[in-house]
Amino acid sequence: MKPNSSQRSPERVPRRVGLWLVGGRGAISTCVAYGLSGLTRGLLEPVGLVTARGPLAALDLLSPEAFVLGGHDVCVRGLSRGAAELVKNGVLGAELVESGADDAAAYEARLRPGLLDGPDVGMADLDPRSAELGAAPPREQIAALVRDLKNFAASEQLDHTVVVNLASTEAGHAPQAEWQELAMFEEALDRGQAQPASVLYAYAAFQAGCSFVNFTPSHGASSPALRAYAKQEGLPHCGSDGKTGETLVKTVLAPLFRDRALKVLSWQGYNMLGNRDGEVLRSETHKQAKLDNKDEALRSILGESDMHSHVGIDFVPSLTDWKTAWDFIHFEGFLGARMSLQFTWAGSDSALAAPLVIDLARLAEFAARQGETGVMEHTASFFKAPLAAAPETGTAEHDFHRQMDALLRYAARYG
Amino acid sequence: MKPNSSQRSPERVPRRVGLWLVGGRGAISTCVAYGLSGLTRGLLEPVGLVTARGPLAALDLLSPEAFVLGGHDVCVRGLSRGAAELVKNGVLGAELVESGADDAAAYEARLRPGLLDGPDVGMADLDPRSAELGAAPPREQIAALVRDLKNFAASEQLDHTVVVNLASTEAGHAPQAEWQELAMFEEALDRGQAQPASVLYAYAAFQAGCSFVNFTPSHGASSPALRAYAKQEGLPHCGSDGKTGETLVKTVLAPLFRDRALKVLSWQGYNMLGNRDGEVLRSETHKQAKLDNKDEALRSILGESDMHSHVGIDFVPSLTDWKTAWDFIHFEGFLGARMSLQFTWAGSDSALAAPLVIDLARLAEFAARQGETGVMEHTASFFKAPLAAAPETGTAEHDFHRQMDALLRYAARYG
Amino acid sequence: MKPNSSQRSPERVPRRVGLWLVGGRGAISTCVAYGLSGLTRGLLEPVGLVTARGPLAALDLLSPEAFVLGGHDVCVRGLSRGAAELVKNGVLGAELVESGADDAAAYEARLRPGLLDGPDVGMADLDPRSAELGAAPPREQIAALVRDLKNFAASEQLDHTVVVNLASTEAGHAPQAEWQELAMFEEALDRGQAQPASVLYAYAAFQAGCSFVNFTPSHGASSPALRAYAKQEGLPHCGSDGKTGETLVKTVLAPLFRDRALKVLSWQGYNMLGNRDGEVLRSETHKQAKLDNKDEALRSILGESDMHSHVGIDFVPSLTDWKTAWDFIHFEGFLGARMSLQFTWAGSDSALAAPLVIDLARLAEFAARQGETGVMEHTASFFKAPLAAAPETGTAEHDFHRQMDALLRYAARYG
Amino acid sequence: MKPNSSQRSPERVPRRVGLWLVGGRGAISTCVAYGLSGLTRGLLEPVGLVTARGPLAALDLLSPEAFVLGGHDVCVRGLSRGAAELVKNGVLGAELVESGADDAAAYEARLRPGLLDGPDVGMADLDPRSAELGAAPPREQIAALVRDLKNFAASEQLDHTVVVNLASTEAGHAPQAEWQELAMFEEALDRGQAQPASVLYAYAAFQAGCSFVNFTPSHGASSPALRAYAKQEGLPHCGSDGKTGETLVKTVLAPLFRDRALKVLSWQGYNMLGNRDGEVLRSETHKQAKLDNKDEALRSILGESDMHSHVGIDFVPSLTDWKTAWDFIHFEGFLGARMSLQFTWAGSDSALAAPLVIDLARLAEFAARQGETGVMEHTASFFKAPLAAAPETGTAEHDFHRQMDALLRYAARYG
Repeated sequence: MKPNSSQRSPERVPRRVGLWLVGGRGAISTCVAYGLSGLTRGLLEPVGLVTARGPLAALDLLSPEAFVLGGHDVCVRGLSRGAAELVKNGVLGAELVESGADDAAAYEARLRPGLLDGPDVGMADLDPRSAELGAAPPREQIAALVRDLKNFAASEQLDHTVVVNLASTEAGHAPQAEWQELAMFEEALDRGQAQPASVLYAYAAFQAGCSFVNFTPSHGASSPALRAYAKQEGLPHCGSDGKTGETLVKTVLAPLFRDRALKVLSWQGYNMLGNRDGEVLRSETHKQAKLDNKDEALRSILGESDMHSHVGIDFVPSLTDWKTAWDFIHFEGFLGARMSLQFTWAGSDSALAAPLVIDLARLAEFAARQGETGVMEHTASFFKAPLAAAPETGTAEHDFHRQMDALLRYAARYG
Repeated sequence: MKPNSSQRSPERVPRRVGLWLVGGRGAISTCVAYGLSGLTRGLLEPVGLVTARGPLAALDLLSPEAFVLGGHDVCVRGLSRGAAELVKNGVLGAELVESGADDAAAYEARLRPGLLDGPDVGMADLDPRSAELGAAPPREQIAALVRDLKNFAASEQLDHTVVVNLASTEAGHAPQAEWQELAMFEEALDRGQAQPASVLYAYAAFQAGCSFVNFTPSHGASSPALRAYAKQEGLPHCGSDGKTGETLVKTVLAPLFRDRALKVLSWQGYNMLGNRDGEVLRSETHKQAKLDNKDEALRSILGESDMHSHVGIDFVPSLTDWKTAWDFIHFEGFLGARMSLQFTWAGSDSALAAPLVIDLARLAEFAARQGETGVMEHTASFFKAPLAAAPETGTAEHDFHRQMDALLRYAARYG
Repeated sequence: MKPNSSQRSPERVPRRVGLWLVGGRGAISTCVAYGLSGLTRGLLEPVGLVTARGPLAALDLLSPEAFVLGGHDVCVRGLSRGAAELVKNGVLGAELVESGADDAAAYEARLRPGLLDGPDVGMADLDPRSAELGAAPPREQIAALVRDLKNFAASEQLDHTVVVNLASTEAGHAPQAEWQELAMFEEALDRGQAQPASVLYAYAAFQAGCSFVNFTPSHGASSPALRAYAKQEGLPHCGSDGKTGETLVKTVLAPLFRDRALKVLSWQGYNMLGNRDGEVLRSETHKQAKLDNKDEALRSILGESDMHSHVGIDFVPSLTDWKTAWDFIHFEGFLGARMSLQFTWAGSDSALAAPLVIDLARLAEFAARQGETGVMEHTASFFKAPLAAAPETGTAEHDFHRQMDALLRYAARYG
Repeated sequence: MKPNSSQRSPERVPRRVGLWLVGGRGAISTCVAYGLSGLTRGLLEPVGLVTARGPLAALDLLSPEAFVLGGHDVCVRGLSRGAAELVKNGVLGAELVESGADDAAAYEARLRPGLLDGPDVGMADLDPRSAELGAAPPREQIAALVRDLKNFAASEQLDHTVVVNLASTEAGHAPQAEWQELAMFEEALDRGQAQPASVLYAYAAFQAGCSFVNFTPSHGASSPALRAYAKQEGLPHCGSDGKTGETLVKTVLAPLFRDRALKVLSWQGYNMLGNRDGEVLRSETHKQAKLDNKDEALRSILGESDMHSHVGIDFVPSLTDWKTAWDFIHFEGFLGARMSLQFTWAGSDSALAAPLVIDLARLAEFAARQGETGVMEHTASFFKAPLAAAPETGTAEHDFHRQMDALLRYAARYG
C-alpha cells in the first residue's frame, strides 16, 4: 500500500500533510508548533532548517505551512505552561508565543493520550488514560494508536502523515527475540507479548500508512522485524536519535584527526542537561542507550582500537533547556608530541532539535511521495545512530561531512 | 624543461630526491630533519603524516628515507642549539636528537646562506653573507640561489629537488605591478627592481628545475607572473601558508554551521604564539598577511556578509612552540535562540607543521614525476590560502572536508 | 558644609536620599531604576547586592526604597526603548519592566541634559542641549549641573544626594597641570580652561553638597585638586571603574599564584563586549584608561617584574550586554613544570554593575551621614582602580579578599 | 615525650631532621627527592614553595637541605624507573635526574617495605614483605613500622622525624567504633582488630616520636582516638588530603560568589587524572573519600542549601601526571540574570604536591621544635579536608584566603 496512491487525492491542491508528534507536549514539540506558526506567519527566518538552504532548497519539498500538527503524549501538562517556561528560559520569544496562540490551541486540541512505556509508571502529570493504555495487550495498544492516526487523517483531510517520535528516552531494553523476523513479531503481538512503546508507535505508524521518524535513542523501527514491516507497507522511515549537540560537533571534528593522521589518545565528553530529557537520563537504565550512541559515533570514525573515551551525562537543573557540554581531546602528533583540543558547546536543546524535526518531516513526506520505502539512508546526518540500509552487511556512516555528501547526492538525483 | 626527463637518470634505482628547506635552521626544519632521521631509522611512527595512511598510502610516493636534506637560512644559529631548545620545550625527544646527530650534522653541512628580505635587516644571529646577498640586484640573488640548488643536485646525485619555503613570514608587500605578467617580471628583474625574498626563492627554484612549496603566507609563486614561469618550466608548485592549527579547526567547524543553516553572528579567534614565528608576527607589517588568510578562510566557507569576525595574534614568549588559540563562535539557531561554541587548541607548531612538509615534498615529487605542471590544486587541504588553479575565475576551496575529498579523488586517479 | 547638617531635616522620618545617575539613560542606569523598583515592590531578591548579606546587612544602611532617582544624560533615547532591548537580550524580565513602568516614567521625568565631553561630539541620539552645554565655559557648565542637583533636592525634599558617574568611558586625557592643586584648578576654571566632563560632574557634585561615586575609568575626582575640594566641602567619594567581570576574577585568582609561590609567566586576557560601552571602547583613545586599570591590578598583586601580560577589549555586537572574557594564565611550578589555568566568564555587564551602584550609593550615604570625608577606602573591592587615601605614599590594594577584609573591618567598626 | 627534648641533641649544630615518606616510591615522593636534591645543589628555584616567600620566609624554618629522606612503600618499582617516566612526561628535567642520582640512590637505600592495606591485595610490583606485613596483627604491624623509624633516626643521627603519608588513597572505611576513644582503640589493637594502613602509620609515627602529616584523604590521625594519642605523646600533626588543583581553585573562587552575593545555582567539577592515583581512584570504594572532600569544601564556603553540585574523577591514562579539570559554575546575579564561569586547570599533580610536602615538613618540624601539640590548624590552606582543632565544636575553614590569613597570623606570632 503506497501512501501516495491511497491517501492522496490528486485533484486537491495543495497537499495537506499531517505531522504527528509522539511526546507532543514536550519542549521540542512545543518549539515545532510555535516555530511552524512563526514560519507560516512570516515572523521567523528559517534559520537552523537544513532543507531551507543550498541545494536542498531546490527540492520540491512541502512548504512548512502545509503541515497540520497532531500528536500523542502521556502527560497532561498544558502546552502554554511549557511555552511560558521556554519564554522564561530564553528559548521562545514572547511575541511568537502570543502570535501563535491560536495555532497552538488548535494543535493542542488534536493531542491524544499516548502509550506509557512500562518502566515509566509513576511520572508526574501523567494522563491516566496513558497509564491504562500502557497496561493493555499490544494489539489493543496498536489499535488505539492507529485509530488516532486515522481519525486525524480523516478529519483533517490529509494526503499523508509523518509520525515523529520525540518522547523522552525509554528505559533500555535488550533486543527481544521476536524482533528478528516480522512473522515472529506478529505472532508475539498476537499472544500478547509486551513491547516497548517506541516499537508500538512505529508499528502503528506503518499500519496507518504513515512514514516514521525516530528522533530518540529508543528502539522504534530499528529491528529487522519493523524494517520488514515498513518495506511490506511500502513506507519510508529513518532514525535514530537526533544529532543536535555534542555528538554533532564530535562527528565534525573526529574526521580532522583521522584525515591528518593524528592519533587520538583520549576523548572525554561531559554533557550537562537541565530539561526533562536530562531528568529522565538520570536513570542509569534510561541513560545507557544514549551513551552508547555517542561513543559509537566516535569509534566508527576514528577506528582506533586503543583510544580511551568516555561520555558522561549529568542532570543540572539550573541549565533548563541550555545543554552545555565540554569535550577534551588528547592527541599525539608527529615526534610523539602530545596536544589537546577542548571545546564547550552551549545551546538550546529544543531550538536545535525542532528545525531538524521539520526537515525530517519534509524529507519523509517527499520520500513517501516518491514511493521510496525502507530506511532513508540519506538522512544519516540528522542522527547519532543512523540506521544502515542493510545492518547485516555494514555499519552506517558517522562522519558528518560524508553524511552531508550523501544528502546532497540525494538532492542532486531529484534536482 | 620537464624535471622528470632532464634530471632523472632512469637506470639508477631507487630515486634520490632533494628536499631543500628555506629557513633551514628554524624549528620546523629542525623537526623535519630529526623526524626524517627517526622515520628512516624506524624510531618513529608516521603519526601526523597524511600520506602515510588511508588511500594516500597506496600511491607510489617516495619513501621518506629517500629524501636528501639541504637548505638556505639567513641566520647562523647551530642546529643542535635549536634542537636542544625543542627538547627542553617537550617537542623533540632527547633520544631522537641523539640518534639523529649524524644525520643532522650532514644536513647542516649542506645549509647555505639565504636571502635576507629587505625589511628584516637587523635580526639576531644574522649570517653576514645573507645580508650582503639581500642587498644585491635581483638577478644576482637568483643566480646565487640557483647555483646552490644545482650544486646540491650535482653533489648528491639527485633526480629531482623540492624547495619548501619555511622562512619566517615576510613583511607585507602590496603586489608589485610587474607581477601581473611574466614578461614584465623578467624585465623588472633585468632593470634591478627589488623583489621580496620569497618571490626570488620561487623563481630560483623554477629556474633550477625544482618543484616549489610555499608553506608561508609570503608571496612566493602566487602571482600570475610566477605561475606562468612554473608552467613555462613545466614544474608543479603549491601554497600558501601551512594550515596547522586554529585555521585548520576553523575550516573543519565552519562547514557545520553552513550545513546546519545556523547563522554565525560572530567568530572571534585569539592566537598566542611563543616561537620565532610569533616574535616576527609582533610586527604589524608582518602580521597582516597571516591575519588575512585566517579570516578569508572563514568568510569563504560561511559566505555571511554580516558576520562579525576578528583574528588576533599575540606573542607570548613563555609558550615557546606550544601555540595556543581560543575561538569563540556566537551563532543563532531556530527561533532566534543564541548559542555558542568555544574551543581551545594547544599544539606544538613545529610538530604539526613538520609532517605536512614531508607530505607536500612527497606529493610535489610525485606530481613532478607524473609531469604535472602549475598549481597542485589537490593539496588545498594543507594550506590556509590555497592557490586556485585559475585565480581569475574563482576562489579556492577552504572547507577542509571538500579539500580532503579533492586529495582523495587525486589519489583515486592514480590508484 | 557637612551634608548631614545642612540638608538633613532631623524631624522628618524616614530619610529621603537622591541617587543621581550621570549617564542616566544607559543600560546600567536602566537596570538600577527597574531593579530598585523591583526591590521596593518585593518582586526581586537582593541577589548581587553586597550590602544585603553578611555583616554588611547589619549596618544601618538606607533601605533601597528610600532612594529617589534622577540623573543627567547627553542623549535622548527613551528609557523604555533601552528597557525593551534589555528584555530582548535576556537581562531584564518583561514583568519587571511592566510592574516598574510608573517608577521608570517618574525617574525619566527627572532626567536633565548632561554635559557632552569634548571628544564625543557627533554621537547618535544626542541631546542638542548637551552639545551646547558641552561647549560652554567650565564655570557655566558647573553652574548648570549644580542647579539641576539643587532643584532635584528641593523638589524631592531630599536629605542628601549621591551622584554616581555611569557615563561611557571618556576619551583619555593626560592629567592637566592645574589638577595638582585646588587653587590652581579654581583659577583654571575662572580663566575658562576646558575640563573633561567627569571632572566637572565631580566638582559640581561637591559644590552641591553631594557625595560622588565614579564607576567609570574617567578622571572624576581622582586628582589632588578634586580630592582637596571634597575634603574642603566635607564630603565622601570613591572610585574608579566598577570591578564587575574579568578584572574581578583576576583579582580573586592572582593571589592564589602569589600565595602558593607559583610563578606567573604570562597572563593574557581577552574581553569581548557588545554594548554601547564596548562600542565606545573601540576607539583607541577611549580604550586606554580601561586597559591600564585592568593590567595594573594584576601587576600590583603579583609584583612580578618579568611577567608577560596582555589585556584586549574587542567590540562584538552580537553579545549585546553579555560580556564574555577568556583569560589564559601560564605559570611555572616546582621543578620548572609549566602549567596553565584558563577561564571563560560570561555575564551581563549591566546586571553585574547595577547592584554595586546601589551598594555604593548606600555606603556613600552612610559615610556622609557619619560625617566621613574624602576617599572611602573601604570600598576598594568595588573598583578596578580604587583610589588610595594618600596617593603620594602608596598604592591601593587590589587583592579582592584583602579589599573585602577592609570592608568587613569598616562594618565591624560601626556594627 | 616531647620530641624536642628527647631526640634533640642541643650541642649539635645544625639540626638534622628526617622526612619519612609513606608511599616513598610514588611520583610525589620522587619529585620531593629530586627536588630537595636540586634545591640543595642550587639547581632549582624554590618556585611553588609557600614557605620560601613572603612573611613565612622570615620564620626560623629548617633549610630544605637539612632534611634526610627515608620512607615506606608497598611496591618495589625502582626509583629511577619512576624518575625516567616523569622525565618522559615532562615533569622532571633530565639534568635534575642526572645531578640527583646519588642523592636518590641514598634515599632509595633507606626505603623499607610498607604496610599493604587490606583491600589493596593484588597490586602490581608488590613487595611480598608488604603483603605479609599487611596480614599481621596490628600490634606487630605497628612494631615493624616503629622499628623502621627508630633505626632511621639512629643511623642518620636525627633530631626529629616528620612522617608524611603520600600513599595512594585507601579504600573507603566507615569510621570504626573504637576510633572514638584512645583507650578503646588501644584495646582494639590489643585484641587484634584490623585497622586501615593509614591509621597504623599515624599511630606508629606518634609512638616513634614523630610528627605526622596526612597528605591523603585516608583516615590517618583524624579520629578522636588518634588525635588524643598525638596530644598524649606531645606531637603535632596535620591533614588531610593535599589541596593542589581543582579544589584549590574552587576554594579561591567560591568566596567571590559569597562576597558578591551572587547565587551559585550549580557547580560541576570534572577531574581527569592519568597517574597511579587516578588508576586507584577508578575503584568506587577508593574514590568516595576524595569526592566528599572536594564537595564539602564548596558547601562549607557557600552555605547554599539548594545549590546543585557534582564532582567527578575519571582515569585518563594518556594524561599521565598532568591532571586536567574543568569546572562549570552557573550562577544568578541581580535581576535574575543567569551567568557562568568555567575554568580548565592543567597541571602536574606531582610538581604541585611535592613543594607542599616540603612546606609541611618544615612547618611540622618547626611546630614540634616549639613544643606545639595536636592539630596544626594554621596549615589548613594546604588541605582539602583540614582537621579542625575541635571537631565537635565546629568545622574547619575552607576559604583559601582565610586559611592563608591564619598561616600569616601564625607566622606573625613567631616573627
